Amino acid sequence: MSSFRAKSVVFLGLGLISGSLALALRASGWQGSLRAWGPREASLLRGVKLSVIDGYTLDLEEAIDGAEVIVVGAPPMASGDLLAEILPKLTALESPSVITDMASIKGWVVERAGSEYPRFVPGHPIAGLEHSGVESAQATLFAGREVILTPLENTEREAVETVAAMWRAAGSRITTMSVDDHDAALAASSHSPHLLAYALTNALADDPLDPMRHGGGALRDMTRIAGSDPVMWRDVALTNGAAINAALSRVEAEIAELKGWVADRDSDALERYFGRCKEVRRRHDRILNPVLDDALAQEILAQEVASDPSEEQGGES
Amino acid sequence: MSSFRAKSVVFLGLGLISGSLALALRASGWQGSLRAWGPREASLLRGVKLSVIDGYTLDLEEAIDGAEVIVVGAPPMASGDLLAEILPKLTALESPSVITDMASIKGWVVERAGSEYPRFVPGHPIAGLEHSGVESAQATLFAGREVILTPLENTEREAVETVAAMWRAAGSRITTMSVDDHDAALAASSHSPHLLAYALTNALADDPLDPMRHGGGALRDMTRIAGSDPVMWRDVALTNGAAINAALSRVEAEIAELKGWVADRDSDALERYFGRCKEVRRRHDRILNPVLDDALAQEILAQEVASDPSEEQGGES
Repeated sequence: MSSFRAKSVVFLGLGLISGSLALALRASGWQGSLRAWGPREASLLRGVKLSVIDGYTLDLEEAIDGAEVIVVGAPPMASGDLLAEILPKLTALESPSVITDMASIKGWVVERAGSEYPRFVPGHPIAGLEHSGVESAQATLFAGREVILTPLENTEREAVETVAAMWRAAGSRITTMSVDDHDAALAASSHSPHLLAYALTNALADDPLDPMRHGGGALRDMTRIAGSDPVMWRDVALTNGAAINAALSRVEAEIAELKGWVADRDSDALERYFGRCKEVRRRHDRILNPVLDDALAQEILAQEVASDPSEEQGGES
Repeated sequence: MSSFRAKSVVFLGLGLISGSLALALRASGWQGSLRAWGPREASLLRGVKLSVIDGYTLDLEEAIDGAEVIVVGAPPMASGDLLAEILPKLTALESPSVITDMASIKGWVVERAGSEYPRFVPGHPIAGLEHSGVESAQATLFAGREVILTPLENTEREAVETVAAMWRAAGSRITTMSVDDHDAALAASSHSPHLLAYALTNALADDPLDPMRHGGGALRDMTRIAGSDPVMWRDVALTNGAAINAALSRVEAEIAELKGWVADRDSDALERYFGRCKEVRRRHDRILNPVLDDALAQEILAQEVASDPSEEQGGES
């Protein structure tokens, strides 16, 4: 069923995302070997104990030697650094590996990595959790979610196909775009929303009324991602800053316009604006809440007993 | 078990919130009568067919006559208008009803209603959904959620107790505060977050790259409430404008600070800020994700087959 035919995948860094990919590949019926290298043995050991990977090594040279597919699973800046170190070594190998990364920014990583190695396929799965670590890994994390690949001019078509097949086996759908389009689109769809969540959270933390104590489902959702890994988001902010600030400026302009209507009590403008947003959001419901097949949905529900319903303050009409 | 001893509750307006309250009261084992009045017979008929209420009337005088507890379930401005019309009539009744509302703002509603009637208990359940209508009602909507009551100086203690007992039967916890504190806290914890979600949604809608197509769990959550009812949120914006704009200004100041650090590539400041937000958010996890008892959780899961896991872009550490 799966067209992913590689016999081995090696993860450089084992955490939530790489661990979830490992679980998803296993769940797909893929029979290859899953190994990992990482700077912290504890995570790797946990990965073996949780049956996420088959084995590990603390020796980077040993890890990449003979690996058919290498997946870099690290924060954005560490991913770029690791790629810069490894790609020259891969060039020297007899049978050079296909290698991909999963960082949320592509321009900085590609530049840091150097683009000479034709079997490097920059990638980014649009999925994650506000938790980290291999112990939070979920086989269904990528089900129905988009994976964006940004192959370069010299990237081999076959390498792209291999990485795409791997992600399809994990349940994802593949989109291909340029590095620049990726970073601009993601600045708007993911990076600036994270900074908005942080800004809102800090504004509330400084309020003497401690309004967060009175939060409902709306605040739960609007601040959830402020629980994300600070190092990862520092990296994103440092490496995609121009696009992020441009996206934030567009949101600031919208806030300023809304404040003007609120101050002027412009009933028509507010209702029209809210109505348009509702229509836009509904039009993207399927993308933002991918429809899962029944078996997957059941599996997810079984894991989600601790979560709560999708509540929000004030929907009475 | 429940200390809610009234024999009849009448809803003025039947939608998501009032319908959910009706279902929650039934689920608690409460045996009283549940009736509704509303401007649209179709909603009321649907409420009867779905066994949410026992019966309805289109005659407002008939609805309030003899009702022990009246619950106004309407958008904020309509709630104020309805209270202004009804409270004088209640004063004239032989056995005057306890009456409460559920609007997201209290100052405007209380002022419009007039505060002479001592058995009016202004209230606000911090729960809701981005959907509306009695057909979306859920018995568990209020489980573990806060209900804020803002009794006035002349409000009878017994009336407050009755309304509090009703909400406790529905699974909520009660907080009492002043009208002004409520409107300031909610401007920060709910109203301004809604306007941020609208601002983000509209900024993305105008972007030629259509970044919303590439949204993951982060964007799903940051825009979910932009699907809320435009009339309800127009009312909130019109009636709590000063507090909302003050709250938005505080968020704007945070965004400006973040943009400065991003432009300066201030790694330490960004990581420290994100780390602090993570800590603040985690500290409020229990409030924002109330712990439900097992039976409730199962019931919710059974209703949530169509929903998806709590995903987000990029949590790799």
